[in-house]
Amino acid sequence: MCGERAQLEIDATEGKARAGRVTLPRGSYETPIFMPVGTHATVKALTVEDLESINAEVILSNAYHLHLRPGEDLVQELGGLQRFMGWPRLILTDSGGYQVFSLRQLMRIDDEGVTFRSHINGSKHTLSPERAMGVQAALGSDIAMAFDQCPPSDASKADVQAAMERTTRWAERCVRQPRPDHQVRFGIVQGGLHLDLRRRHIEALAGMPFDGYALGGLSVGDTPEQMTEVLDAVASEMPAHRPRYLMGVGRPQDLLRAISAGIDMFDCVMPTRHARNGQLFTSQGRIVISNARHRDEKGPIDEQCHCTTCQRYSRAYLRHLYVAKEILYSRLATYHNVHFFVDLVRQARQAIRAGELETFTRSWLSRLDAADEARRSR
Amino acid sequence: MCGERAQLEIDATEGKARAGRVTLPRGSYETPIFMPVGTHATVKALTVEDLESINAEVILSNAYHLHLRPGEDLVQELGGLQRFMGWPRLILTDSGGYQVFSLRQLMRIDDEGVTFRSHINGSKHTLSPERAMGVQAALGSDIAMAFDQCPPSDASKADVQAAMERTTRWAERCVRQPRPDHQVRFGIVQGGLHLDLRRRHIEALAGMPFDGYALGGLSVGDTPEQMTEVLDAVASEMPAHRPRYLMGVGRPQDLLRAISAGIDMFDCVMPTRHARNGQLFTSQGRIVISNARHRDEKGPIDEQCHCTTCQRYSRAYLRHLYVAKEILYSRLATYHNVHFFVDLVRQARQAIRAGELETFTRSWLSRLDAADEARRSR
Repeated sequence: MCGERAQLEIDATEGKARAGRVTLPRGSYETPIFMPVGTHATVKALTVEDLESINAEVILSNAYHLHLRPGEDLVQELGGLQRFMGWPRLILTDSGGYQVFSLRQLMRIDDEGVTFRSHINGSKHTLSPERAMGVQAALGSDIAMAFDQCPPSDASKADVQAAMERTTRWAERCVRQPRPDHQVRFGIVQGGLHLDLRRRHIEALAGMPFDGYALGGLSVGDTPEQMTEVLDAVASEMPAHRPRYLMGVGRPQDLLRAISAGIDMFDCVMPTRHARNGQLFTSQGRIVISNARHRDEKGPIDEQCHCTTCQRYSRAYLRHLYVAKEILYSRLATYHNVHFFVDLVRQARQAIRAGELETFTRSWLSRLDAADEARRSR
Repeated sequence: MCGERAQLEIDATEGKARAGRVTLPRGSYETPIFMPVGTHATVKALTVEDLESINAEVILSNAYHLHLRPGEDLVQELGGLQRFMGWPRLILTDSGGYQVFSLRQLMRIDDEGVTFRSHINGSKHTLSPERAMGVQAALGSDIAMAFDQCPPSDASKADVQAAMERTTRWAERCVRQPRPDHQVRFGIVQGGLHLDLRRRHIEALAGMPFDGYALGGLSVGDTPEQMTEVLDAVASEMPAHRPRYLMGVGRPQDLLRAISAGIDMFDCVMPTRHARNGQLFTSQGRIVISNARHRDEKGPIDEQCHCTTCQRYSRAYLRHLYVAKEILYSRLATYHNVHFFVDLVRQARQAIRAGELETFTRSWLSRLDAADEARRSR
């Protein structure tokens, strides 16, 4: 693979799971990896110092949002996204495909591209494969995602197939666009819950000069069981010498199952969004901090957690801050949740290297499933 | 002063200004000092690590707010306010007098005390000298404030005098209340803009066993000139061997003028509140971060500032975060503003020790007044 922009070295496997290192022009990261989401060029409530101390190695930002505000030209003028936000490590940008479709501001879509209204002020915008790659080139991210059509979760198979085929045609245009020397490009596999379509799409994209491949269109209304079925069937059929990225997923259980299926990279808003909504992740399942039982709880969110929030603050104090709607709550809670996700995936990586992933995963799943069960029965 | 709970050592003076150190049972702090405000047991958006790195030595919290939520009994059960919020340094608590009157939820006031409605849920509460000191004893703050009546800024002289006389009667009851071994008590001087009343009240309170004295009822609708007149006349008439504290003031100019008048301690919500509203303090005056001229500004808030926000983030990035309503904005902006206030007062302290306060103050005032002038003329 010498001379290629992205190099993946696998140093351990267990079943379909793999652990390794991806080296890009501006830096490297170990896989499996969880990438915190920083939609507007900020992981909500966290500084870059926080992210460094959590050992986040890659963060995700959104071309769609940054195109609308502050605009990719301004970011480029200020030295690129890394410099703009003061983040010295790697950045992956989503192309905007998912946002355009999920924010339901869509006005027109055809082979040329997509016309939509800004969710901020209603102004009209267009995105196309050329434009989406151009925005990401201007932002100067390390990993740019191809521009894809993400069909709604209730789409017919014919519609899913049509979106997949359009995504293929768009992918061919994406890989022809210019890009900065330091940027690599990942293709996005669509095909919904249809294994035959997924396989056809993997095959179609595998022949194009992408540096990595993502699974899109999952966790968009499907059940965990449906997603697991797709992952178990097709994750390991994605090109083995390229990083495999599962977009927008998900719960701790989902991450562990996907790692076992052969996925290397993850992003999800769950740790940040749930933190702000009062839901905190622990090794014994999720807790709801507003719950009255935490009112006088002197202990931390999670006795087993080493994050600074758990080292210094009690559940009682966090509950007080949450109830009083204090900003510090969002900050301490987000720090904990992001630490939890990054660290869970790091532990899974270590487990693969130690040949203990199966045991590790079984132990976590039994605890998390029991916690879910207990919550449902309350 | 051996054997007293609060010891003030003055090590330098310049004119009426003084620099020194106050030693309390659980710690000491240098004066003049600016104390950041942490109303709900949190300085909004900042962690205790942030406050330590800013070199804040004392923070202020509010007995009124903590009484309503989460309640002083819970805080006491959890080990006191210091432990509850994870702050290892000193805490001053306001007694609730100012809040009860300023939040205008007042139902009844007589010599016994005050009945008011909670601003949170309308529930009925009472505060009296005994109850206010009891709340602060339970919170376990290092400095407890006496319970005072703070008249509105448009009160007649007769009303101001009546409130002052009631505050004296309440002060006598405050000093008779039990308190934790580590807690000291400050009296509050009222009297509005009437120098004769201020002097009478200083004399009345000076005879009581308070460990320090505060000026209350300023910056409540009066002009800076009116406040300066009161300060210049009476600050230096407060007991010289006790810390002198000017409550709730104010702009950088006000702090500098008050230090020259002989004040040792300050608190104010201005740095935290203005930060969240987009106003940032600099050595060249205040800036409004939403202003379009900061859109592509690569430089920091203040070239001369050593805070981490200014070391790492541009005005352009802060403006983007502010416009996008990102939590990180509040955090970075608050850090800068609190650093600015704490550091300005620290610099004034050094200037007193170097015998350069007059030069220091003149230089600052000319810059800040010029900036105010430029802002008004735009």
